[in-house]
Amino acid sequence: MLNKETIATEFMMLQDSICQSLEEIDGSGRFKEDLWQREEGGGGRSRILEGGKLFEKAGVNFSKVFGNTPAFLYDTKQNINPESQFFATGVSIVIHPINPWVPIIHMNIRYFEKDAGACWFGGGIDLTPHYVIPKDAIYFHGELRKVCNKHPLADYVKYKKEADDYFYIPHRNETRGIGGIFFDHLIPADQTEKNVLFNFVLDVGKLFAPLYIEIVSRNKDRLYTSEEKKWQRIRRGRYVEFNLVYDRGTKFGLETNGRTESILMSLPPQADWQYNFIPATGTKESESLNFLKKGIDWLK
Amino acid sequence: MLNKETIATEFMMLQDSICQSLEEIDGSGRFKEDLWQREEGGGGRSRILEGGKLFEKAGVNFSKVFGNTPAFLYDTKQNINPESQFFATGVSIVIHPINPWVPIIHMNIRYFEKDAGACWFGGGIDLTPHYVIPKDAIYFHGELRKVCNKHPLADYVKYKKEADDYFYIPHRNETRGIGGIFFDHLIPADQTEKNVLFNFVLDVGKLFAPLYIEIVSRNKDRLYTSEEKKWQRIRRGRYVEFNLVYDRGTKFGLETNGRTESILMSLPPQADWQYNFIPATGTKESESLNFLKKGIDWLK
Repeated sequence: MLNKETIATEFMMLQDSICQSLEEIDGSGRFKEDLWQREEGGGGRSRILEGGKLFEKAGVNFSKVFGNTPAFLYDTKQNINPESQFFATGVSIVIHPINPWVPIIHMNIRYFEKDAGACWFGGGIDLTPHYVIPKDAIYFHGELRKVCNKHPLADYVKYKKEADDYFYIPHRNETRGIGGIFFDHLIPADQTEKNVLFNFVLDVGKLFAPLYIEIVSRNKDRLYTSEEKKWQRIRRGRYVEFNLVYDRGTKFGLETNGRTESILMSLPPQADWQYNFIPATGTKESESLNFLKKGIDWLK
Repeated sequence: MLNKETIATEFMMLQDSICQSLEEIDGSGRFKEDLWQREEGGGGRSRILEGGKLFEKAGVNFSKVFGNTPAFLYDTKQNINPESQFFATGVSIVIHPINPWVPIIHMNIRYFEKDAGACWFGGGIDLTPHYVIPKDAIYFHGELRKVCNKHPLADYVKYKKEADDYFYIPHRNETRGIGGIFFDHLIPADQTEKNVLFNFVLDVGKLFAPLYIEIVSRNKDRLYTSEEKKWQRIRRGRYVEFNLVYDRGTKFGLETNGRTESILMSLPPQADWQYNFIPATGTKESESLNFLKKGIDWLK
């Protein structure tokens, strides 16, 4: 029977293997590890690589926390049960590359359990190119569809739409990037389904390194100008806006007294805000903006 | 009798005079103006100076908006009255200087009116030094106390505490800067009090330019290193965190479909996030951090 400790162990091993793959492709940067403990139960392994040859800042975090179920996890105050216990484990990744032609990427997989029985999985991968390269976007979404199609309970079309809706910045009327897949509260009906969902989630996690490394490899040697680097910093500013204003994981972490430096590892090494910066029509910056909208079907 | 149009006109004139003073001290940068209109009624004058000799980015905004009272301005849904009208006008300033020894400053004054009669004033000034210089902090708070003491209904001690409480970043356990004064919902009991409160708020607005220019003048010619410039970008990152996660004005603006570029003019031209950056004990960076807490009485 699949239990929570097995899931946490698999997530830790995934963190190990992803860090190794990223160090290999980077060729120079090394992850630094911080172990942290949560007073109320559990803790995590934060791993950050800064100043690599390819990656300016890469965070690959694992956490396993448990204890009394915090009040905010209840729908209503009436339902609060002081005896209730929760358990949550996950892997969370954000990578900010140096080269503006290499996209930012985010991946997260998580498992949650409350008391005896109630449990669910969540996660996703989404890509945030500073410059949208359609053939890379097609490749990216194609791989995500493949991993969904391999698993009977997964649904690419649904998760792709959820990513479009989730990674959206209303005050800019822009999506954060070209989306990907996003899923939450995947509740197994029985032990068999629990195994099926776990295998799916773990496959999403295992897809991450080869998928990103392929996209990195395609673009890492591309020359870039200081103007392109500046555009990257403007786009990173949008990433900050999304993460601090809208991202549920970030809000959840900050509001529940999580480890701030682990939560905010997602923020870029450097970001710019220039007043009312609008790229001229027909430029590659402007063309990239045209791809930052919901509902683009890259696989049609 | 003091009416809303008089208040708005005075606020506009204040914006003019502040922009003029800031251009004078900068000596090179010029404000660019954007006029904008709000579909539901009213609009504003956004003025931004970028790339000055002293100021990297300075925003001095005026707005006057009115129309049907939006639903979020009611305490409860039961009280919503579709006939109700509101009127709001204000001046809002954030300045990010080039020199890390010159502090960031923020000032805001505002007037709000609902239907016939109900009205209030709000506002404040707070200072965010990258490096806290005690004698400047004492001067700053001294001037704020003076302006409060000149006005019978103002209370420096109360407003200073409100600034400490408001400009606070819980997930960092740091105040944004050395505080200042903050006040909201100053409701006049009658026309006489309305005049008294307006004179106070306008005096706060008029204090802004000479107060900041004095602090700028004291520090603008100080030489700085690239390390100090880097520390400035780290502190600007905290400014971003406060404004995007906690600032009520920013949230209010973004949630109510305000003009995004005017709201986010407060964000710095450039900000850094370095993982777990903690200055060594005894450095001037570490000493500055020690001043970023609530309840420091600079005037004792």
